[in-house]
Amino acid sequence: MSANAATNAAATPATADLAGLVLAIAKRARAASLELATATTAQKNAALERLAGLIETSHEPLLAANARDLAAARENGLAAAQIDRLTLTPERLAHLAESVRQVAALPDPVGELLDETTRPNGLRIRRVRVPIGVIGIIYEARPNVTIDCAILCLKSGNASILRGGKEIFHTNTAFAALLPAALAHAGLPADAVQLIPTTDRAALNTLLKLDDYIHCIIPRGGESLIRFVAENATIPVIKHYNGVCFVYLDEAADPAMAETVTVNAKTSRVSVCNAAEQLLVHRAAADTLLPRVARALVAGKVGLRCDPASAAILARGQIPHTAATEADYRTEFLALTMAVRVVDTLDEAVAIINRDGSAHSDAIITRDEAAARRFLAGVDSSAVFWNASTRFNDGFEFGFGAEIGISTDRLHARGPMGLRELCSYKFLVEGTGQVRG
Amino acid sequence: MSANAATNAAATPATADLAGLVLAIAKRARAASLELATATTAQKNAALERLAGLIETSHEPLLAANARDLAAARENGLAAAQIDRLTLTPERLAHLAESVRQVAALPDPVGELLDETTRPNGLRIRRVRVPIGVIGIIYEARPNVTIDCAILCLKSGNASILRGGKEIFHTNTAFAALLPAALAHAGLPADAVQLIPTTDRAALNTLLKLDDYIHCIIPRGGESLIRFVAENATIPVIKHYNGVCFVYLDEAADPAMAETVTVNAKTSRVSVCNAAEQLLVHRAAADTLLPRVARALVAGKVGLRCDPASAAILARGQIPHTAATEADYRTEFLALTMAVRVVDTLDEAVAIINRDGSAHSDAIITRDEAAARRFLAGVDSSAVFWNASTRFNDGFEFGFGAEIGISTDRLHARGPMGLRELCSYKFLVEGTGQVRG
Repeated sequence: MSANAATNAAATPATADLAGLVLAIAKRARAASLELATATTAQKNAALERLAGLIETSHEPLLAANARDLAAARENGLAAAQIDRLTLTPERLAHLAESVRQVAALPDPVGELLDETTRPNGLRIRRVRVPIGVIGIIYEARPNVTIDCAILCLKSGNASILRGGKEIFHTNTAFAALLPAALAHAGLPADAVQLIPTTDRAALNTLLKLDDYIHCIIPRGGESLIRFVAENATIPVIKHYNGVCFVYLDEAADPAMAETVTVNAKTSRVSVCNAAEQLLVHRAAADTLLPRVARALVAGKVGLRCDPASAAILARGQIPHTAATEADYRTEFLALTMAVRVVDTLDEAVAIINRDGSAHSDAIITRDEAAARRFLAGVDSSAVFWNASTRFNDGFEFGFGAEIGISTDRLHARGPMGLRELCSYKFLVEGTGQVRG
Repeated sequence: MSANAATNAAATPATADLAGLVLAIAKRARAASLELATATTAQKNAALERLAGLIETSHEPLLAANARDLAAARENGLAAAQIDRLTLTPERLAHLAESVRQVAALPDPVGELLDETTRPNGLRIRRVRVPIGVIGIIYEARPNVTIDCAILCLKSGNASILRGGKEIFHTNTAFAALLPAALAHAGLPADAVQLIPTTDRAALNTLLKLDDYIHCIIPRGGESLIRFVAENATIPVIKHYNGVCFVYLDEAADPAMAETVTVNAKTSRVSVCNAAEQLLVHRAAADTLLPRVARALVAGKVGLRCDPASAAILARGQIPHTAATEADYRTEFLALTMAVRVVDTLDEAVAIINRDGSAHSDAIITRDEAAARRFLAGVDSSAVFWNASTRFNDGFEFGFGAEIGISTDRLHARGPMGLRELCSYKFLVEGTGQVRG
C-alpha cells in the first residue's frame, strides 16, 4: 500500500469496519502461515537479502516518512530523548540493512530434528521444530521494530501481524511498503508480513481476541502496554513486564569484581530491562565491600537509596545516600538510582530476590562455589549470573544471533527469545499399519 | 483435613470469603514451589512410594467417600455410564497405586542440562530444566485425576492446586487427605499439593486470575469446561478443546491397511480425543478402497455420514449410510459415527484437515513415500501419522511413561505432555567478572 492510503486508513475507518479489517488480515495471515511453514530456507533468505537491498535503496522514502513522524512529535511536544529514539538516519538505516543480512545468515530453525525414538511396536516417532504459525507483535515507538520483528518471524517461518505505535506510524508504513516486493521476489505470500494500517485502539482490541487465527502475541514496549495486552488477549502472550534485577554481593565476594560488575550492571545502560536496580550485601562483608562499591556507583552519578544498615555504613564513610522507601525495594528505576539492603544470609538474599524481583536477571558475586551453586539453584529467574553482569541477559550476548525479546514467563520461552524460541514442534509418526490394542 | 470439614467448607463459605481462601492457597503453593524446585529426586520418589502405600492401605475411607459421591450421582439421576466413570473399585485403586509407583520410577526431568555454550568472552551459559512453578489443574468427574495430576506435578517439581468437579468431590477430598502424610514422610512441604476445598464457581473464577502466584493452568474435561477456563484465565492455559481427527486414504493406500487402521482409529475407543471422526478418500482410489473400509466400519456398528461422491459409491455397494450435513465435517462425534468425503488430491486433503480439523492427530495411509512426506509436512497438527492409527497420540504410546494431557496449542507443549513438558528452563551463567561493553 502507499503511505497515503495507509494514512487515510488510519484516519478514517469507522469502528464498525475495523473488526472486519483486522479479521481479514488475521485470516490472510493464517493462510500465509501454512505456505510459509513449508517454504525453503533459500526462499526465506532470498526475501531477506532483497529486503536488505530495498532498505538501502529506499532511504529517500523512508527518511521522508520518518520526517512526517518527527514533525508530529515536535508538534506534540515530545522530549528530545523520545524524538531521538524515533529518528532514522542514513547510518541507522545502514545498520538495519546489515541486521537483516545477519538474520539471513543465521541457521534456519525449521525442520530441525529435536528427538527421535522407535517404539517396541516399530513406530518411529520424530519431534521436529516447526513454526508457531501466526505471531502478532504489538509495539510502541521505535522505528527499527517493524523490520526486526518481520525478519525474525519470517526466518522462523511464521506469518506476522505488526501493530506499532502512532508516533512512528508513517515510518512503519514506509518499511512495510518494502515487504511485498521482497516476499514476491522469493515466491513467498505477500500476507506473510502485514502491518495493521491503523493505530486505532479498537483494532488492537479485536486483534487480541482472534485466537482462531493468531497463535501468539509478543508485546514490546512499556509495562502499561504489556499489561494491557496481557489482560485483554485471549491469545497466549509471551512477555516480560519489567526487570527489577538484583546484584548480591556475597560474604566471599572479590571486592574489585564486586565494584566493576555492580557498576556495569547499574550504569552501562540504565534504560534497559537487564540493568540492575537493587543491591544486596551480606552483613559480614558489608563494611568492606559497601564503601568501595558505593563510592564507585556515586562516582558514576548513581543515587543510592539505603536501608538503615547500609545507610549507617555509608554515613560512616561520608558517602552520599538517601533513605529508601518500601516501594524502592521493588522499583525498576530505569535511571541512575539503586536501592541498597544488607542481608544476614545468602538464603535471605535468595528469598528477597524471589519475592521482590521480577524473575528476570539476577547476579551473585562470590569466590565461594558452594554459595554460588545455592544461589543459582535457588533464584527463580530467567537467567542467574555468577560473577558476571546482569546486562548479559540478551539474545546476542547468549549467542542466539538475534532476539525478539526477553521472557519472564515460564511457558514456552524463558529469557532471551531467538529464532528457535519463535518455533513450536510437532510429532511425525511413521508406521507399517500399527493399530492400538 | 477430614472429609467432613471439607464438606462443610464446600457447603458453607460466604462468597466474600472464597477469594481470600483461594488467594491463601495460591500464596502457600507459590512458597511450596520454591522449596520443591530444589527437592531431590530421592525425596520426591519417597513421597510417591509412600503415597502408593497409603492408597493401598486406605481402601476403606476411599471407597466410603466414593460411595457418598455415587449415592448423590444416583439421586441426581446420572446415567449408568457416567456413574461407572465415577466408581472406584479395589481393582481400580490397585491400578492407581501401581501408576504412582510407575511415576516414581520415571527419570526426574528437573536439572537436566538442555544445552551449554561458552561465549568468546569466557561466559559459560547453561540452559537447565526447572519446574514451571505452580500449576493449577481444573477437572471434572473422573476419580483418578486428583492422584494422576498430583503425582506428575510433584515428580516434575511443581506445586499443584487441584480443583475437581462436584460429582466427585468427596472422593477427591479423601485422596487429597492422603497427601500430607506422604509429603511429610519425604520432608516436602504440605502445600506442595492442595485441593480447593469447595466446588463453588466463584472460587474457580478467583483462581483463574491469580497470575502472580500460579504459572500455568491445565484444564481437563469437556470442551465447555476448557472454553470457560481459557476465556476467564489471565494465567497461561495449556489445552486442547477437542479432537476432530482425520484419516486420509491416499490414492496409493494399501487396502488391507486402510481397513485395519481406519477401523482402529474410529472404533477402538470412541470417547477419546485421538479417535478419528473424519474419513477422506482420494477420488482415484475411492471405488476400490471405500467399499471395503466402509463395510468394515459398518460391521463395527459405525454410522457413516457421506458427501455425495462417497454416498454414490456406497449406494452402488448397498452399504448403509446417510447424507452428511455441513456441520458433520467439523464434528467430534465421540460416538460410532464417521463423516466421509472424497477428495481430488492430496493437497485438497491437507487443506481440509488444516481448515476443518482441530490440529490434534491426523493420519495418511499410503505406500507412496513422497505423498506421505508432503502430508507430514503440510498437515499442521500436533501429531501426524503415516500408516498408523491416530489413537497412538498419547504419552504412554510415545514412551513418555505418563502424561497429564494432550495439547493442541503451539506454545510450550504440543501433543502429549509428560514430565518434561511440565517443566520450564532457566539460564545459569558463570563468569569471572565479565562486564558488558
